[in-house]
This record gives sequence, structure tokens and C-alpha cells, in this order.
Amino acid sequence: MTRRIRLTLEYDGSAYCGWQTQANGPSVQAQLELALRRLTGVPHAVTGASRTDAGVHALGQTAHFDTQSRIPAEKFCFALNTLLPPDIRVSASMEAPEGFHARYDALGKSYVYRILNRPHHGALQRNTHAHVPLPLDERAMDEAAALFVGVHDFRAFMAAGGSSKTFSRRIAFSGVRRRQEELLFTVTGSGFLYNMVRIMAGTLIEVGLGKRPKEDILRAYATGDRLCLGVTAPAQGLTLARVYYPGDVPSLPEEEPGPFLL
Amino acid sequence: MTRRIRLTLEYDGSAYCGWQTQANGPSVQAQLELALRRLTGVPHAVTGASRTDAGVHALGQTAHFDTQSRIPAEKFCFALNTLLPPDIRVSASMEAPEGFHARYDALGKSYVYRILNRPHHGALQRNTHAHVPLPLDERAMDEAAALFVGVHDFRAFMAAGGSSKTFSRRIAFSGVRRRQEELLFTVTGSGFLYNMVRIMAGTLIEVGLGKRPKEDILRAYATGDRLCLGVTAPAQGLTLARVYYPGDVPSLPEEEPGPFLL
Repeated sequence: MTRRIRLTLEYDGSAYCGWQTQANGPSVQAQLELALRRLTGVPHAVTGASRTDAGVHALGQTAHFDTQSRIPAEKFCFALNTLLPPDIRVSASMEAPEGFHARYDALGKSYVYRILNRPHHGALQRNTHAHVPLPLDERAMDEAAALFVGVHDFRAFMAAGGSSKTFSRRIAFSGVRRRQEELLFTVTGSGFLYNMVRIMAGTLIEVGLGKRPKEDILRAYATGDRLCLGVTAPAQGLTLARVYYPGDVPSLPEEEPGPFLL
Repeated sequence: MTRRIRLTLEYDGSAYCGWQTQANGPSVQAQLELALRRLTGVPHAVTGASRTDAGVHALGQTAHFDTQSRIPAEKFCFALNTLLPPDIRVSASMEAPEGFHARYDALGKSYVYRILNRPHHGALQRNTHAHVPLPLDERAMDEAAALFVGVHDFRAFMAAGGSSKTFSRRIAFSGVRRRQEELLFTVTGSGFLYNMVRIMAGTLIEVGLGKRPKEDILRAYATGDRLCLGVTAPAQGLTLARVYYPGDVPSLPEEEPGPFLL
């Protein structure tokens, strides 16, 4: 009998070409498929909710696979962790409801973008935070981040290479707060275009430096012009925090999600 | 003219054999001496406050060196950061007072030991936290940690290989608190024997698991018997948070220091 298993995953993306298997390096997906093959003796294909980029991290990536293995669904978590490298951990495994699809069923996702804001970068934060040495005005950034909330045409926020054909997305929460020398930009939305969160973060950094008015975000909605926005912020600051499904939550939370163990 | 320069350093100890230069691998000290040589063209010897072990991290290691270079003291920070690997950062540099010695002048140090307490380890915490999968009672651990405060004979807390000839140390603060799935053991003291903080942490973990009564700590003081204490906790959980000097503070703080950017 074939069952569909749902996994919740966290990973340090530093060593990977991203979630998805590609020719140019090791992927998180390939590591999972390798571990499943070693565990069960047969090949398995794993489908993830989000194709995170090279260097991007995850605390709550979600994936599914179909298996004929008789291992109890909730045991995959422990069994896979004995076979995976330490920079990938399965935090939960369960049998998925009939027809569950990690990617197509997602109501939306939350991301956290982390910035270290002080003269020198952090020896211990170098792979998890972007570094901005000049002082950032987190109140101005939070006000600009609030402009992302709602339904907008985000085509200006898509990097070249994105394959989306529709550009309207709903952002349920978006905010910036300071925690000592660290700034956290958290955003929850129905979906994100290619590099959208990193372009949002890069724009907020320019607002925080006083180099760009927050109204440029409204201009980007109106014109679709990428040049209204900041440079794409570095991949290592980004973490996929959570993926939401109808069975877990009634709708996307409009408050700051978490707290996440960051 | 020779000046003495004081550096404040942070590092991710994962890739190093420890602070001190040894035959068995790259050291933080050697990386600093290499960067100074590249910066000035001449060899420099660097003296650190604490000889942190392999895998141990630092947020506030302190070091000094003598130089005839005419680089302004406060510029060494920026110049060295352009030459050091990203897992070592200089957070401050200044001219040291006459006769300053990073090791001999230290009033004491604060360490933080971090534990991730949940079934699976963290993909992003694997190099900075110890992992304890079974539930820990942080209140019992905090009560046991309070027994470290005061002047005690800590000879039972020294690993084989320690060279200290006196065993009395004064602990000014010691406490355990929970932050979600993370436990933080923070300890400030006049000095620490070889592996002392890791033996303290290992003992607190056994208390937190209900495997050892806190009174074993009093027995260890009375008998000097290492077997009254827990196993040495892993190096990667330990971070040297701060070194205190008479010119900076009047005495060791008896409250929890920080907050540190952890």
C-alpha cells in the first residue's frame, strides 16, 4: 500500500545549491532522497513546498513523498535524522491526508530576513545574516514594510529568471523590529515571486539608510519598474520560517508569526 | 616607538584547534598573527586572555600585542577585518594602558553555555549548542547553578591535563534560564580551571535530567572527587562571552551579564 508522508524540515542552506536538485552542486532535496533510499532500499521522489535558493535557510520547509515502506509515518523523522548530514534535520513526520501536495496546497509562507547592523559583521552570524555597517532606522523600515501588506501587483519585485505568469500576491503580515544589533524583517504572504523577499529586504535596507523614500514601493506597484526598488539583499540573510496548510490553520496569520528559534 | 594594542575579538571556533597555536591544526592566534604580519610586514606575537579549546567560540575574547606600526590604534579593527577569515572578527581595538596584559590583568570572565533541548538537534545550531533530546528541568538546573556562586575549591572540576596549582576560584554569578527550546547557562568568575565550565554544564545537564542531585556539587567541593560530577559537556556549546579588566569595571558583576548577541 502506498502512503503519502509529510515532512517538516530545517536546514542550513550554506553548503547547498538550494532546495532543488541541479547540476551545479548538492541540493537539500537530493540529500533527502539519498537518505530515503538508504533507509528503504528503493528510490523516492521528494516534493518541497518552496524552492529555496542557494544559501537560503529553512526552519519550517515542508515536503512530501509517496512510499510503500511500512515504517510508521512518525518514525521517519528519527530514522532520516540518523542518515542526513547535520545541516539538515527533519523536525516532524506524519501521514499526509489523501491528496495532500506540499507545494500546491500551501496557503502561504512566512520568511524571516536577518540583518546584523553594526560596524563589523558577526563571526557567528556570517552565514545567517546580511551585514549592514551603517546605522539603519528600523522605524522607517517598519513603516515601509507595512506598505507590503494587502493585495498588490508585485511584478517589479521579481528577479530575471522567475517563471511566474501572475504577479498579484497577498501579504498578510510584514514588519521590521530590532533585537539589539540585529534587525528582523518578517513577512507572511500567499506566495512569493522569484527573489521577492530578498528584493523587499534590499529595498527596506535602502529606506533604513535614508537612500530611498518608502513611497518608491507604491511607485513600483504602479509602474512595475524594478528600478524603483533596492538591490537584491544577500541570500544568507533569508530563512523560510513556515509553510501554512488549510488543515493546520484557518488562514494566514495577520500578526507576527513565531517566535521562531532564530 | 612601541605601543601595546588591545583587541576585542569574536570567533566561531568550529574550524580551529582553539585559541592557542598548536601542531594539530589552525588556531585563532595564528590567524591573527598572520593578518598582523600581512598588515604591517613584520612578525607580531599576540597574547590572549583565555586559551579557548577546539570548537569553543568567543564573543569577547581579549588580546594584546606590541607594535612599532604607526597605524592608529582604533584602525587596527577595520584593517585586520579585511585580512582575517570571516569566522574571526575584531570588534574593537584601542591603545592599551602602560603595562596592560590581556591574561594577567583579567579580573575574571563570563561564559555562556548553550543547550538545545528538544527531540532533534538544530540544523542551524549544530555548531553553537549542545543537544539534549530529553526534557530538562531548568529550575532544578538554576538551583544547582546557584551552588557554584561564592569561593570554592573547584579541583574536582578540572579535567586531566590542567596545569593549575591552585584550585580556589570565586564565582560571582551563575544561572540557567530557558529561551524557548534553548537553555542558557551563564557563569562569571575570577578564573576557571581546565574544562571547568564544561564540567559545570555537564553536571547541570545531569541534574536537569533528574540523574544527579544538586548536592553532588557540595560533595565535589568537600571531596575533590571528579566522580561526583557529570560528564564534560561538548565544546561547541561553550562561548567565552566577556573578559573583565580593572580599567573597565570596578569588580565582577554579580548579576547576569549581557544581553549578549547570541
